[in-house]
Amino acid sequence: MLINCVVYQDGQKLADIDIAGISDWLEKPGCFIWVAMRDASPQELQKMQEEFGLHPLAIEDAAHGHQRPKIEEYGETVFIVMQLLEMQEGDVHVGEVAVFVGRNFVLSVRRSSQQNFLGVRERCEREPELLKQGAGFVSYALMDAVVDRYFPLIDALEAELEKVEAKIFERGAARWNIERLYELKHRTSTMRHAVVPLLEVVGKLHGGRVPAVCMASQEYFRDVHDHLARINGAIDAIRDTIATAIQVNLSLVTIEESEVTKRLAAWAAIFAVSTALAGIWGMNFEVMPELKWKYGYPAALLVIASMVGFLYWRFRRRGWL
Amino acid sequence: MLINCVVYQDGQKLADIDIAGISDWLEKPGCFIWVAMRDASPQELQKMQEEFGLHPLAIEDAAHGHQRPKIEEYGETVFIVMQLLEMQEGDVHVGEVAVFVGRNFVLSVRRSSQQNFLGVRERCEREPELLKQGAGFVSYALMDAVVDRYFPLIDALEAELEKVEAKIFERGAARWNIERLYELKHRTSTMRHAVVPLLEVVGKLHGGRVPAVCMASQEYFRDVHDHLARINGAIDAIRDTIATAIQVNLSLVTIEESEVTKRLAAWAAIFAVSTALAGIWGMNFEVMPELKWKYGYPAALLVIASMVGFLYWRFRRRGWL
Amino acid sequence: MLINCVVYQDGQKLADIDIAGISDWLEKPGCFIWVAMRDASPQELQKMQEEFGLHPLAIEDAAHGHQRPKIEEYGETVFIVMQLLEMQEGDVHVGEVAVFVGRNFVLSVRRSSQQNFLGVRERCEREPELLKQGAGFVSYALMDAVVDRYFPLIDALEAELEKVEAKIFERGAARWNIERLYELKHRTSTMRHAVVPLLEVVGKLHGGRVPAVCMASQEYFRDVHDHLARINGAIDAIRDTIATAIQVNLSLVTIEESEVTKRLAAWAAIFAVSTALAGIWGMNFEVMPELKWKYGYPAALLVIASMVGFLYWRFRRRGWL
Amino acid sequence: MLINCVVYQDGQKLADIDIAGISDWLEKPGCFIWVAMRDASPQELQKMQEEFGLHPLAIEDAAHGHQRPKIEEYGETVFIVMQLLEMQEGDVHVGEVAVFVGRNFVLSVRRSSQQNFLGVRERCEREPELLKQGAGFVSYALMDAVVDRYFPLIDALEAELEKVEAKIFERGAARWNIERLYELKHRTSTMRHAVVPLLEVVGKLHGGRVPAVCMASQEYFRDVHDHLARINGAIDAIRDTIATAIQVNLSLVTIEESEVTKRLAAWAAIFAVSTALAGIWGMNFEVMPELKWKYGYPAALLVIASMVGFLYWRFRRRGWL
Amino acid sequence: MLINCVVYQDGQKLADIDIAGISDWLEKPGCFIWVAMRDASPQELQKMQEEFGLHPLAIEDAAHGHQRPKIEEYGETVFIVMQLLEMQEGDVHVGEVAVFVGRNFVLSVRRSSQQNFLGVRERCEREPELLKQGAGFVSYALMDAVVDRYFPLIDALEAELEKVEAKIFERGAARWNIERLYELKHRTSTMRHAVVPLLEVVGKLHGGRVPAVCMASQEYFRDVHDHLARINGAIDAIRDTIATAIQVNLSLVTIEESEVTKRLAAWAAIFAVSTALAGIWGMNFEVMPELKWKYGYPAALLVIASMVGFLYWRFRRRGWL
Repeated sequence: MLINCVVYQDGQKLADIDIAGISDWLEKPGCFIWVAMRDASPQELQKMQEEFGLHPLAIEDAAHGHQRPKIEEYGETVFIVMQLLEMQEGDVHVGEVAVFVGRNFVLSVRRSSQQNFLGVRERCEREPELLKQGAGFVSYALMDAVVDRYFPLIDALEAELEKVEAKIFERGAARWNIERLYELKHRTSTMRHAVVPLLEVVGKLHGGRVPAVCMASQEYFRDVHDHLARINGAIDAIRDTIATAIQVNLSLVTIEESEVTKRLAAWAAIFAVSTALAGIWGMNFEVMPELKWKYGYPAALLVIASMVGFLYWRFRRRGWL
Repeated sequence: MLINCVVYQDGQKLADIDIAGISDWLEKPGCFIWVAMRDASPQELQKMQEEFGLHPLAIEDAAHGHQRPKIEEYGETVFIVMQLLEMQEGDVHVGEVAVFVGRNFVLSVRRSSQQNFLGVRERCEREPELLKQGAGFVSYALMDAVVDRYFPLIDALEAELEKVEAKIFERGAARWNIERLYELKHRTSTMRHAVVPLLEVVGKLHGGRVPAVCMASQEYFRDVHDHLARINGAIDAIRDTIATAIQVNLSLVTIEESEVTKRLAAWAAIFAVSTALAGIWGMNFEVMPELKWKYGYPAALLVIASMVGFLYWRFRRRGWL
Repeated sequence: MLINCVVYQDGQKLADIDIAGISDWLEKPGCFIWVAMRDASPQELQKMQEEFGLHPLAIEDAAHGHQRPKIEEYGETVFIVMQLLEMQEGDVHVGEVAVFVGRNFVLSVRRSSQQNFLGVRERCEREPELLKQGAGFVSYALMDAVVDRYFPLIDALEAELEKVEAKIFERGAARWNIERLYELKHRTSTMRHAVVPLLEVVGKLHGGRVPAVCMASQEYFRDVHDHLARINGAIDAIRDTIATAIQVNLSLVTIEESEVTKRLAAWAAIFAVSTALAGIWGMNFEVMPELKWKYGYPAALLVIASMVGFLYWRFRRRGWL
Repeated sequence: MLINCVVYQDGQKLADIDIAGISDWLEKPGCFIWVAMRDASPQELQKMQEEFGLHPLAIEDAAHGHQRPKIEEYGETVFIVMQLLEMQEGDVHVGEVAVFVGRNFVLSVRRSSQQNFLGVRERCEREPELLKQGAGFVSYALMDAVVDRYFPLIDALEAELEKVEAKIFERGAARWNIERLYELKHRTSTMRHAVVPLLEVVGKLHGGRVPAVCMASQEYFRDVHDHLARINGAIDAIRDTIATAIQVNLSLVTIEESEVTKRLAAWAAIFAVSTALAGIWGMNFEVMPELKWKYGYPAALLVIASMVGFLYWRFRRRGWL
Repeated sequence: MLINCVVYQDGQKLADIDIAGISDWLEKPGCFIWVAMRDASPQELQKMQEEFGLHPLAIEDAAHGHQRPKIEEYGETVFIVMQLLEMQEGDVHVGEVAVFVGRNFVLSVRRSSQQNFLGVRERCEREPELLKQGAGFVSYALMDAVVDRYFPLIDALEAELEKVEAKIFERGAARWNIERLYELKHRTSTMRHAVVPLLEVVGKLHGGRVPAVCMASQEYFRDVHDHLARINGAIDAIRDTIATAIQVNLSLVTIEESEVTKRLAAWAAIFAVSTALAGIWGMNFEVMPELKWKYGYPAALLVIASMVGFLYWRFRRRGWL
């Protein structure tokens, strides 16, 4: 579905135009067309392919979706695929935006995502001196918008991880922790798949051999690259922390289990002694002189009690009770 | 065994020809021969070597099979080995296809695999303007077909992994999970050995110094490279998830064991107390005044019951019961 | 907030000047201005941007803070971001300093950190022959000061790690160890994020293509690079040791648990035998000849005692007691 | 010890010659000398050094042995060290062969290994058209022979690993598995040390700058490189599988232990209840009315039996029995 | 402290000279000075700096010590730092040697180490034809001596690791093993920090762009590089083995614990049955007909004994006893 299709000249908006008019305007020198679509049908994409002269493989990728983030050059045109991440009901939803950047046009096609880029267009139109840089700057602006929306997800991940960490040394929370950590690992993984390939390819938009359309905005792409590197660093730190936390969690469960085992087994030993002694004086031998003593019973109780006391004291000293 | 052997000119099929006629047709300018074989005998391969002038080392590799995926140049000829993966009775079966790509011929030799490439030939014949690109495009088409068949295997792996993940926090499924995870690890490993070496070498068919026969189809090889990178990304994600899942599974078993141990040991302690008390009043001392009390027995039962109750309450509060 | 703003000529301090006067002085040949600010407001930064002609993206980074350490060139100007680390109440506090280095000026902007660079200025003013090298040398001096302050943090980390290691084979310290190790891991992680990106980029200030303003001080930057490499090596060693220590800790808990389990279970078995024997002679059968023997009771006690002795001896020999 | 020393011309054997005659023959144009030695004494090596003009450092390496596999150029001469692996009594024995390759000679010195290269010489003599390529081809033939002998060791490793895998989910085999896996890990490690350094250096014998003597046989060295890459891939897969298997083994032991613990503890609980009840009715209170009931005893047995039955049913339902 | 200071010409010792005379001799063509110091005071180093014209940063590094191994060029002079490792009371002691190599001088400064280099000087003086190569060869000789002294430490590490491995499958040695492994890990870590950075930088002394003073001795530096690579390979193997051994050790403890648990719990179950049965016949019901049977008691003993026998047989069959 077409969202809008606008012609700019010298950084100023000229007119909203028809799709059919695109190829005419493309020929006018100094003009530059910016088209935004979402969930485009194959027919719409084919129309665009004809108007802008796009490569069939790139169109195919835009139509099928589920691409890895990438930047590919087809002749003069640069084809960019980025993933749009958004939290939906506690889960990371992955959408996609494909951007075609030519000498004098930008076409963005968004798929299965609620995030729009109207704000990007508005900001660009407010800064005509930058918009004059043309297609390269617009593609930067789109990329910047996509990448900036990764930050809140990272923050959310870090906040949740901190919640888990706050409970990690709490007794009895092991199961809850491990489930949370596993889920966080999943979300981190999803984010990583959006960020790492993009980081790799954006590095090629500044510094070395840069596609012609992006040349003038190199410093801006370096800024995006830097943001991605920061996000990537944060993701690596989160992954590392999760891995350690899972390991520590296992250690803690084992430690806790070992403490409980010791304590219960110590009590079991104390009662086993009592039972064994009581069992001995409960035997039915005819000749058991102590059974006839006047203070035999209290004495027996005393023996049992002192046995219990002695064991209690010993286990206590060893830190088992 | 020969499957077919066809001459093309300007993207159009000219004729099915004899093996013996190959060297004659090769000399005609503008012609291009596409031969498909399967499970070729050494004699057949030697015949091909003579007709196309192939290098003995490449022929040897095609004859022996069990190669790693690779792309090698022998003079003008490019020699490609890829693995064909298919699910057979829940296991990944590994076949192989060796492709010789010359200036005006393509020879594909398939080994121990049910997958055929008739569909590839048909599709190519339907698009004469692409087939005109010659041997390079055909080798792309074959490679694309091989790689596209990896996707359903990845999907199957991901589906099974999700099934395991759905059960991972279920009590009592630990053994089943670990067996499944180990098996998935194996299958992932097999896939990785088909994909990673191919990914490395396909990267050399676009961008930098590209063999002459593949030059015209560079953008298509980049597309294959991109597919392989996606598959590789998916495999890495699966491996990572399996590793974490095994670790989490171990943690969960330990947690569960610790819970059961606590619960059973708590009950054992409760009964041990009862037994010890009963044992004391079962002793045969002559002077045990409480035994003669009218309500001695109910009192004893009450003492035992309240001991049990007290312990039950304490253990409950600690979360052991 | 402005800390100070000084003009130098030939390595000698000329005068403290006004912000408003900066652009005038910049035009005088042979002069060089060094400005230090802290927690600068957006207005102050904008003023600086105008005076020195700085790039808006760099100013934005300096204003927002929370950057990864980096070195970026904007035309002739080099923009450096470093993290300032200091211990605050047993935790690593992360501040930031942004340094703009031009042909004839240095501007440093410090954020949320107590560390000042007055000492650096003093030391530079005491060595006019080095200060003559200009902006490049000053940026080295600042960088050197930042990096030198990392060393005490590394030493503190190593000292604490040694304290944990000293207790790692101590019985009963497992929980304390694991909590300490987890915390150390966190601190190491924070340090790593300050050091690793800086190490990467400082490598570009000596050897290959070096920004013009840093050219004359290459050997000094190599020295900083070497310090960072040393810190990085120490961090890697600490991480490695922590990982092994966590693993070893888990092993030790398991070993200890296993020893305690064996010991308690062995005692339980000894008492269970006594109880079982006593239980048998406590049965109420009418015909139990041994109950009537004169020495039945001592004999029974002897049997029980020798059973206990035998088991004790066997378990001892097996190392369970 | 000298094995043999032969002069070839145009791929044909000319004569077996004396060591003393080597330097004379070396001067004759078109001649090429191939010397094979084993466990050479320092004196023999020194003689060779003089005849062929070899570098003292290379001679030293050949004399001392225990080198890593490597390929070094000393002027025109290429010095190759490879490890010879063979199974001896279930263990991998590591021998060594040092090969000096000059413009018109090959000298191979084998150390502490039973593997000889007579077959290589025979095969070369049967193919004079290849042997004509000279020293480069002979060094390829030796290298190929060494590398081909690695394959059966890999196969043996894989077969043993499969045997362990077949038992990995078997109850009670944990100890045997872990011992086998540890041993396999060792053998894999030994193989890796023979293969990885060689893989690295053989890569320099084709493609880029290649030593002059190896130039003509580049495609053959690429073939060796490919074989090594395959072996290396197999070793990596084995290492990966071993690591996972050890981890899985630990999980399984923990799972199994947890099952046994549950089962035994459940039985213990059942008997503890019986004992506690029996203990109560074994108390000696005078007033215990149920003891006088006619059917008191059967009733008590019934109570005990139903308790046991109830617990059995509950534990069964929970999967503990 | 000065050890010695000698002038050489054409590989022959000319004279022992004074520090004050150094700068005079340096000007004589064809002369070459070799100075050795140990634990030099700042004053001594400053004197050297003046005589040889050394860079202040290098002097500072030599004075402070605790550097990572490195090789740095200051103009024509090469500055080398290496770590000296020696076993002291079962621990690895780390000393340091800084070597300044100029066109016609070598200055070595050793810190906190007992290892001297007198042997190196003697060996060099015995081989004047090599010593003629000048400063480059002497720096090689020193480096070679340092690196050769790493080998016995590696051998010691391997020997100790083998001792641990020999005990790893022994019952009851787990704690001893884990302590040993942890200590070995530490020592390996220390060695790694001496070897890895040196390996990296020595690679730059042969092959590519090599500092002028080392040019003539390239092949010798390659030999040192090769030794370091071998040591590094050995260290990697040791680290790998330690990691696996720790993991295997944990598995074995768990396996052993599981076996002991099973065995003791099985015995506990056997006695629990006896106790429960004895308890039943110890109840005081008036009507318990079997108590009055003539052979009641032996029958009861028989029941108990057969229960015990049956359980024993079952547990045995399951491998628990």
